[in-house]
Amino acid sequence: MAEIIFQFETGEPVRAEANPGENLLEVARSHNVAIDAPCSGNASCGKCRVKLVRGQVASEKTLHITQEEYDAGWRLACVSKVSGDVTVLVPDIASAYKSRMKVADLSSGEELAIFDATMEELRGAGIAFENTFRVIPLTMEAPTLDDTMPDNERLLWALRNETGCEDISITFQVLQPLSRVLRDSDFQVKAVVTQEGAGLQVMNVLPADREAVAAGLAIDIGTTTVSAVLTDLLTGKILAKASAGNGQIRYGADVINRIIESTRAGGRKRLQKAIVEETLNPLIAEMCKSAKIPVTWIYRLCIAGNTTMNHLLLGVYADPVRMEPYIPTFFYTHAVKAHDLGLFAAPEAKVVISPNTGSYVGGDITAGALSSCIWDKDEFSLLIDLGTNGEIVFGNRDFLMSCACSAGPAFEGGDISCGMRATDGAIEACTIDKETMEPSFRIVGEEGQKPVGLCGSGIIDVICELFRCGIINAKGLFTREGPRVRHNEHGMGSYVLAFREDAASVKDIEITEVDIDNFIRAKGAIFSAIHVLLASLDFEIDMIEHIYVAGGIGSGINMKNAVMIGMFPDVDLEKYHYIGNSSLSGAYTILLSDTAEKKVHEIASNMTYVELSTNPGYMDEFVAACFLPHTDAALFPSVMEELGE
Amino acid sequence: MAEIIFQFETGEPVRAEANPGENLLEVARSHNVAIDAPCSGNASCGKCRVKLVRGQVASEKTLHITQEEYDAGWRLACVSKVSGDVTVLVPDIASAYKSRMKVADLSSGEELAIFDATMEELRGAGIAFENTFRVIPLTMEAPTLDDTMPDNERLLWALRNETGCEDISITFQVLQPLSRVLRDSDFQVKAVVTQEGAGLQVMNVLPADREAVAAGLAIDIGTTTVSAVLTDLLTGKILAKASAGNGQIRYGADVINRIIESTRAGGRKRLQKAIVEETLNPLIAEMCKSAKIPVTWIYRLCIAGNTTMNHLLLGVYADPVRMEPYIPTFFYTHAVKAHDLGLFAAPEAKVVISPNTGSYVGGDITAGALSSCIWDKDEFSLLIDLGTNGEIVFGNRDFLMSCACSAGPAFEGGDISCGMRATDGAIEACTIDKETMEPSFRIVGEEGQKPVGLCGSGIIDVICELFRCGIINAKGLFTREGPRVRHNEHGMGSYVLAFREDAASVKDIEITEVDIDNFIRAKGAIFSAIHVLLASLDFEIDMIEHIYVAGGIGSGINMKNAVMIGMFPDVDLEKYHYIGNSSLSGAYTILLSDTAEKKVHEIASNMTYVELSTNPGYMDEFVAACFLPHTDAALFPSVMEELGE
Repeated sequence: MAEIIFQFETGEPVRAEANPGENLLEVARSHNVAIDAPCSGNASCGKCRVKLVRGQVASEKTLHITQEEYDAGWRLACVSKVSGDVTVLVPDIASAYKSRMKVADLSSGEELAIFDATMEELRGAGIAFENTFRVIPLTMEAPTLDDTMPDNERLLWALRNETGCEDISITFQVLQPLSRVLRDSDFQVKAVVTQEGAGLQVMNVLPADREAVAAGLAIDIGTTTVSAVLTDLLTGKILAKASAGNGQIRYGADVINRIIESTRAGGRKRLQKAIVEETLNPLIAEMCKSAKIPVTWIYRLCIAGNTTMNHLLLGVYADPVRMEPYIPTFFYTHAVKAHDLGLFAAPEAKVVISPNTGSYVGGDITAGALSSCIWDKDEFSLLIDLGTNGEIVFGNRDFLMSCACSAGPAFEGGDISCGMRATDGAIEACTIDKETMEPSFRIVGEEGQKPVGLCGSGIIDVICELFRCGIINAKGLFTREGPRVRHNEHGMGSYVLAFREDAASVKDIEITEVDIDNFIRAKGAIFSAIHVLLASLDFEIDMIEHIYVAGGIGSGINMKNAVMIGMFPDVDLEKYHYIGNSSLSGAYTILLSDTAEKKVHEIASNMTYVELSTNPGYMDEFVAACFLPHTDAALFPSVMEELGE
Repeated sequence: MAEIIFQFETGEPVRAEANPGENLLEVARSHNVAIDAPCSGNASCGKCRVKLVRGQVASEKTLHITQEEYDAGWRLACVSKVSGDVTVLVPDIASAYKSRMKVADLSSGEELAIFDATMEELRGAGIAFENTFRVIPLTMEAPTLDDTMPDNERLLWALRNETGCEDISITFQVLQPLSRVLRDSDFQVKAVVTQEGAGLQVMNVLPADREAVAAGLAIDIGTTTVSAVLTDLLTGKILAKASAGNGQIRYGADVINRIIESTRAGGRKRLQKAIVEETLNPLIAEMCKSAKIPVTWIYRLCIAGNTTMNHLLLGVYADPVRMEPYIPTFFYTHAVKAHDLGLFAAPEAKVVISPNTGSYVGGDITAGALSSCIWDKDEFSLLIDLGTNGEIVFGNRDFLMSCACSAGPAFEGGDISCGMRATDGAIEACTIDKETMEPSFRIVGEEGQKPVGLCGSGIIDVICELFRCGIINAKGLFTREGPRVRHNEHGMGSYVLAFREDAASVKDIEITEVDIDNFIRAKGAIFSAIHVLLASLDFEIDMIEHIYVAGGIGSGINMKNAVMIGMFPDVDLEKYHYIGNSSLSGAYTILLSDTAEKKVHEIASNMTYVELSTNPGYMDEFVAACFLPHTDAALFPSVMEELGE
């Protein structure tokens, strides 16, 4: 057996043992060392870099590692085999979309303002933010030798008197400590109750002098990023917000690779563990700590995720989703409880899964459609959700059509060498001087924050500016020389946004032709999906009154630039609205509002799914859209005018 | 730190570390070494014997250890303190009621005949052995590109067609593997369903070609002994039977000591673990193995135990049960599921707890009252349940009175030096020749089985015979010399039933004056309870038509002898019926019959509890009854006649 030590930039090293010949990435995975491998170990993404510190591995040389890097000890873990004792450094910033958790500042203005505006619009559309959770103060007589009613009957008696309801049940978690709670509080308590079927269910009993928060948790499970909001079910007040990378990322960047991994031995459990134990539970613990409540005060959860994420979360076999005839195990579920999934919450807390409506249009998009309010309007609207799966919904109060396309993680900073999510240090906006070719940035975070990488909105700006300045051509290739433009040994061009010394990074922050190509394919997928969907309905783009852009791309998105690179249709910019993470705001709405829960199921069952992959024109449209802005210039008249062509 | 090694007669030793001064019994408990300590470490029972093999302990000398034994290295663990490295032998047969599991032979005639007779009587009393479990064969069309309904909706559709029920839910455990089950079986399945509220719940889905057993488990949780029956919910056929010692025994022999232990740090979890993980789960695993089904095919459980056992099983604080005003957390529960307790079964399997009706009259006695059918008769009947807690129920179809007394574990062989349960090797019946004083036995087990110890029915016979032969007097003291009678250094007399060489034991099988005294106190508790209960109602003993004797004392019980020693009232022996473990047969009935489940709740709420401990005459009656047969000879005319007095 050889000794393998995984070192990190921060934190304790992990020691492992392996037989010579074992794959280094597999060894890392089996010891819970998170090495990003979006392509799931096919040597195609080049993300799983590790650096030799001691010893050697038997490793193929790949195009993803330059000679200089190779000489410095960099290897791809997926093509490295154990050959003896070895210590490797696993870069902490191996990938921009790493699993770093962030409990957000509740005062962060812009995002919150978008969120509040969404809730206001939902109220206007008739969504009542009402649910059946109540906190009921109860005063009981202490038992005596003449009044020996058992504790649970005493509690039920008091509750029946207070509510008039005869059918009340107590969860096991309430029963267990009940005698202690009643006696410690001299039989003066608060009961947290909710409707269950025709009756009431008691979710908790607390001493009367203790603050009793009935908390709920809304979670958006993205393929790449997970976001959550902890809220007070009675008031809707947000108690904590947080986001983190989806811990499944190391098993593949997209849903297809995840499904493939889930079919391997133990894969289903492994993927469920990665999302529940490694991603959600630490996030929930952190949020509850910040909100100063125990996790068991979470009495209801709502989860919005795509169909695959929902299946993997529940530990349900997902391979039939991927294989003809593409059948999910479920669109909607009933009766899933927190304890079924092992989620940190009251064990009997109901987990509402925002319903899926197709193999590739899931609960994230039904929740997003809910919060966009497009189902309430006479005018036609378009909802564009920029996730790893791009999803498009089009329609009005009479009908809703949806489709999905595989955009990859580029919008969230994935598949981009210096990409990152829109958190501190992310370049969220950029301009480039046409003469000097020098860039100017807006960076997420405090004044003076140095750049760490590029988030989705920043990438749009950079590509748009490089194109506008003639530094790259319509194919995304570098065509102009300058102090910040360079080419590597393979002739691949790149543009340096910030040199190492000006950045909070161990290397220069640059955008490469590969990055640009990845992004162009992502935007091409989105644009062609919109185009084909509308064409299939014989709809002209001008008939659309509102275009809602949602997703983790960041509130800094510049719609004009997005149109200029051919990502979005060339229509009046006034029609564009960035609505933030509509999946999360939808989940929050379903969490708090019983009418919203009904509405989202109505939306899901009325939504028609258009399968793009079997549409004969889609591939041609996609290829035509992989161009700046598009091979068909007539589709982008305002861009052509701006470029003076 | 000192090294402590616990050796056993069989099995691997357990190594521990402890600081000098630590209590040896505590060290053993914290390392899950089961040393019997019925008195919970008060040096009063003398059961926690260990033998020094290497090293020494700081130990007080107690009356429980003779000088000879002390010199040989025997110590009581509860009064021993660690003083350095030490190895001790923990006797495997430290106590007769050790936790040895036994999966019973289903063909064992006598007990089964009693069981069958009980069920027959219950049917006669209107208990329909019917429940809502069903196994429904379903044939579905496989999905196609034109029929893309998700798997769960396809299943629900088929079930709605088959049952006509609209309100059907699927448990999470069915949802998780559903896609695989459907595809592996070409969409030809069997669904195990049951009524849940107004609708149906699907508990399992299996391929059509697989045998689908809907199993249920009835458990009697005694303070000393646990017994269980695994049955087919559809046919009532018994699939396996088993019994084991209650693993909580090492935390105290009776409910009071258990409750005290549960109030210590971590005690509640420790006692729950002892019954669930150390006693029930191994028993369930063994039974399912014998029945060749997975434990997850157990869809319903019914548990009958006394109030304290029920509280400790659920991990509910039990101390208010013990302290004035003696308030249990619950009499009945709803909504307890197997997963709440961590029991081996389908996670959503409902656990029905036979209802308690007082602090010291629990679900064991309500279940027992159910199966005795005394609630269905015009005549007055008496039910005597001989457990560690002795419980008495008296009444007819119009009323039921109950009381409880603390008899100790003597009826199950506890508190008796050579006592054991009625399993292989137990002397279950005995006669002694008045002239030669030589004994003859009937021993449980195969022909030629050597004696191991004495079970309850055997103890009755031995004491009765010793008394009849004049070997002991009415106080239980030895008054006649003989080859089998001896006295130890303290003058304590004993009678050797079998010398070491004729026994399957490492020492002589004998009955001592201490044993006899323990048993006399147990029988005195029972008789005085009966006497006081009837007296409080102004009932003459002759007005009773049937006396049902239940409990683990063994089917070998000789009623005439039991009357002769003053354990039971001196009435026509024809009135006595041994009905075996009525608690278990009651649990079995509740498990299978929805009418029985209703009936037992009716019984529980109609039963009046008479508190003996506050009855001014009870203590005097008890003292008077601690005599062979009784200080008031007039109560036992037939015995006096037999004895020629």
